Amino acid sequence: MKVLTGQLLDYASDPRHAGDGAIRHVVDGAIVIGGDGRIVWSGGRSDLPAAHAALERIDYGSKLVLPGFIDAHLHFPQYRMLAAYGKDLLDWLNRYTFIEEQRYGERGIAETAAKAFLDELLRNGITSCLAFSTIHPVALDCLFEEASRRNMALASGKTLMDCNAPDGLLDTAQSAYDDSTALIARWHGKGRLKYAISPRFAVTSTEAQLDAAGRLAKENPGLLIQTHLSENPAEIEFVAGQFPWSKDYTDVYDRYGLLTPSSLFAHGIHLSERELARLSEAGSAVVHCPTSNNFLGSGLFRLHRTSEGDHPVNVGVGCDIGGGMSYSMFDTLRDAFTVSQLVGSRISAHEAFYRATLGNARLLGADGEVGTLDAGKYADLVVIDPCATPLMAERHALSGNLHDVLFALMILGDDRAVTETWVAGAPLKPRP
Amino acid sequence: MKVLTGQLLDYASDPRHAGDGAIRHVVDGAIVIGGDGRIVWSGGRSDLPAAHAALERIDYGSKLVLPGFIDAHLHFPQYRMLAAYGKDLLDWLNRYTFIEEQRYGERGIAETAAKAFLDELLRNGITSCLAFSTIHPVALDCLFEEASRRNMALASGKTLMDCNAPDGLLDTAQSAYDDSTALIARWHGKGRLKYAISPRFAVTSTEAQLDAAGRLAKENPGLLIQTHLSENPAEIEFVAGQFPWSKDYTDVYDRYGLLTPSSLFAHGIHLSERELARLSEAGSAVVHCPTSNNFLGSGLFRLHRTSEGDHPVNVGVGCDIGGGMSYSMFDTLRDAFTVSQLVGSRISAHEAFYRATLGNARLLGADGEVGTLDAGKYADLVVIDPCATPLMAERHALSGNLHDVLFALMILGDDRAVTETWVAGAPLKPRP
Repeated sequence: MKVLTGQLLDYASDPRHAGDGAIRHVVDGAIVIGGDGRIVWSGGRSDLPAAHAALERIDYGSKLVLPGFIDAHLHFPQYRMLAAYGKDLLDWLNRYTFIEEQRYGERGIAETAAKAFLDELLRNGITSCLAFSTIHPVALDCLFEEASRRNMALASGKTLMDCNAPDGLLDTAQSAYDDSTALIARWHGKGRLKYAISPRFAVTSTEAQLDAAGRLAKENPGLLIQTHLSENPAEIEFVAGQFPWSKDYTDVYDRYGLLTPSSLFAHGIHLSERELARLSEAGSAVVHCPTSNNFLGSGLFRLHRTSEGDHPVNVGVGCDIGGGMSYSMFDTLRDAFTVSQLVGSRISAHEAFYRATLGNARLLGADGEVGTLDAGKYADLVVIDPCATPLMAERHALSGNLHDVLFALMILGDDRAVTETWVAGAPLKPRP
Repeated sequence: MKVLTGQLLDYASDPRHAGDGAIRHVVDGAIVIGGDGRIVWSGGRSDLPAAHAALERIDYGSKLVLPGFIDAHLHFPQYRMLAAYGKDLLDWLNRYTFIEEQRYGERGIAETAAKAFLDELLRNGITSCLAFSTIHPVALDCLFEEASRRNMALASGKTLMDCNAPDGLLDTAQSAYDDSTALIARWHGKGRLKYAISPRFAVTSTEAQLDAAGRLAKENPGLLIQTHLSENPAEIEFVAGQFPWSKDYTDVYDRYGLLTPSSLFAHGIHLSERELARLSEAGSAVVHCPTSNNFLGSGLFRLHRTSEGDHPVNVGVGCDIGGGMSYSMFDTLRDAFTVSQLVGSRISAHEAFYRATLGNARLLGADGEVGTLDAGKYADLVVIDPCATPLMAERHALSGNLHDVLFALMILGDDRAVTETWVAGAPLKPRP
C-alpha cells in the first residue's frame, strides 16, 4: 500500500449538465492505493485516516492527479502509420491502411506492435481504451497478452471484414463468427480485459457477416460493439449502394441488431435527424475523433447538436490512431475544442476532461471500475504537470482558476505534460 | 568559418507550380559558413572545395538542414497568452488581449517578454518573422534591441490604434504618425531589422489614423505594411458599420493607400471575389494563420482558391501567437493541411515547407538574404531530427521518400524535432 499526494481532480457527473457541483477538486489531496491496485481512500491530505499515515508516500506537489484517460476509439494495428498522406477515408484505407494491417497475421509483428502501441498510450496517460485490431486472431491474442501483462483495462475484438478489401484482410461470415466466439471465450473477463464485437464498417461486411455479428451480439448480451458510422460522404454513398434496401447508414447496423446500449459508433459526422433519433432510442454512442476527422477532411462534427439535440446521443472521444494525428488526449481535446468553435458551440475544458475520463468510462460500461478517484475503483491515474515546458510555465502563471489551467493544458499540452501514468496502482509511463 | 554537414533541403521556387524541379535535396550535403554569418558555399559533401576541407565541422548526420523558418504573422506582446478561452475574435480581444497588451508601456515587462518571445521562436526553428508589437514605442525598442543582440532578421512596428480599445492601448492619429516616423529613423535597416507600418486593423483605427498610415506608406516607399483583414464575420460587420462608404473591408485599406506589394494582410478568410481581385492587382499578400483561425473559430481559409483563383493572391503562413495555438511551424503547417483537407484542396508537404521558408521570405522582401541555402544568404538554418520522439522514429521507418518524411514531420513534429537553430551562423536554440 502507498499514498500519492497532489492536486486531485475528477468529475462526479457531466459538468456541462450538472454544473460546477460535478467538479471535484482537492488542491491538497491524497490517494491511498491498496495492494490489489485499487483506491482504498481519497480526499484532502489533512483528512487522511491515521491508519494510512505511515504508508510510503509519493508526493506530486501541486501537479494534477486525474483518473487515467480513456480512449473510446483507435486502431492498434495502425499504431505507427500516422500521417499517411491519404486524400480521404477510402483512399487512405486502400493506399496505406489495408497494406499495413495485412502484416498482423504474423505473431512476431503483432507482439512488437502491441508493446509499442501500449507504450504510446501510457506515455500519454491513457490507461484504458476500446481499440480495433485486425481480422487475425493472433493479433488480438498479442494485444490482450501484452495488456494483461500491464494489467490494463483494454477492450478490443477481432475485426470482421469479408468484402471490399485485399484478400489478406478478409475473413468470412462463418470464420468471423467462429473466431469471435472462440476469442470471447478465451479473453472476455480475463483480468481487466473485455471483448468487443468489431465489424469494421458496413463497407467491408456482407449482409451475411453483419447477420453473424448480430448473432454474436444476441448470444453475448452486454458485450461492447464497436464499428464506424457516417464518417465521410463517399463512404456513406458507398454504403447506400451496397445496401439498397437501407433507409440510411445507421439502418444497416440497425437491421442486424447492432444498435445496443453497449454499441459505440466512431465518427457519426453526417447523421440525419432520423439516424440520431434511432441511436438515441437505442442508447448507443457516437465517438468523436476530431484529429482524425480533420486529418482526413471528413467534416466538422457537431458535438452539442448530437449530444443535446432533439434526440440526444451519448458522445465519447477518441484519438482514432492512425487516421488521428496524435495519441495525446490533450491534442484530441484541443481539436474537439477547435471543431466546436468552428461549428459555433464551444466546449469547456471541464466538459472535455469529463468526456476523457468518466464520460468515456460510462460509454464503455466501465464506470464501476475506473473514471473517477472514488474508493473501490482501480488506481488508474494520470499525473499532469501544467508547467512541463517553458511556454506552458509562462502560460500557467496567467491562469486564474482551474478551468484556465485545464484549458491551457488541452491547448498546449503533449506527452511531456504527463509526469506519470499509474495502472492498477503501478507507475508505468515508459521513459522517453 | 565552419562547415555544417547533413541532409540539405531548400526550394528554388514554389514546388506546387514549378514541380519537383523546385526541390533541392542533397542527401549528403555541406554548408560552409563565413565569418560574417553568411553562407559561403553549399552543395554535396563530396564536392566541398579543397579550400574549405580543413575547417571545423559540425556533423548533423542524416538530420535535415533547411533554411530557418520564417513566420509572416504573430504578436510579440501576446507571447505568453496563448490558450485564452475567448468566444471569438472580438470577445477574445476585449477580455484577454487588450488587457495583456496594456502592460507593455513598461520597459521591464517588455524586456522580459522580448527575451521569452525570441527564445520561443528559436526553440521552434523560426529565425525571422513579421511581428506585431503594441502602441508603445518602448515595447518595440525592447523587441528590436533583443533581436539585434541575437542578430535576427526581425520585422515589426509600433501598433497604430486610436479607437475601440481601452484607453491604455490608444494613441492618436498624430502620435501614431510621429512615433512611427521616429521609430523608422531609429530602427529601419539597422543591422538585420526592418520596420513595418502596423495599423492593428480597421476596427481600432479612425479614418484620420488610416490616413496617417497611408502617409507613412507614401513617405517610406517599399516599407512593409502589416494589418488584419476579414478574419471573422462579426469583425467584418463592425468594419462595414464603421466605414459606411466602403465597398467592403479591403476597400477601407485601399482608400488609404495601404494595398501595396509590401502589404501583408493576416487571415483574409472571408474575402469576396472583388476583394481578391484588388489584392491580386495590388500584389499584396494574405497570411494564412490556421491554428489561430481554428482556435477562434474564425472559419476555414481556402488556400488554393485564394492563391490560384481567377485573381491569384500571394499567400504566406503564420502562427499568429497568441490567437494561434503554437509557435511550432510544424503545428502551423499541420493545421494548414487539415484546413486544406476540410475545404477539399489539400496542400502537399513540399508546398507547406516552401511557404514556411522561401515563400514567406519573398512576401517579406527578404529572399535576397534568407529563405534558401544559396551562397551569399545568411546562415539562418533549422536542423531537424525526424526521429525526435519514439513515435516519430517508428513513423519515420515507414517513410518511402522525402515527401513522406516532411509530411510526417509536419503532422507529428514539435520543438523536440528542432535539434538546432542557427542565426547568422551562430547556434542559438535555447536549452529548456
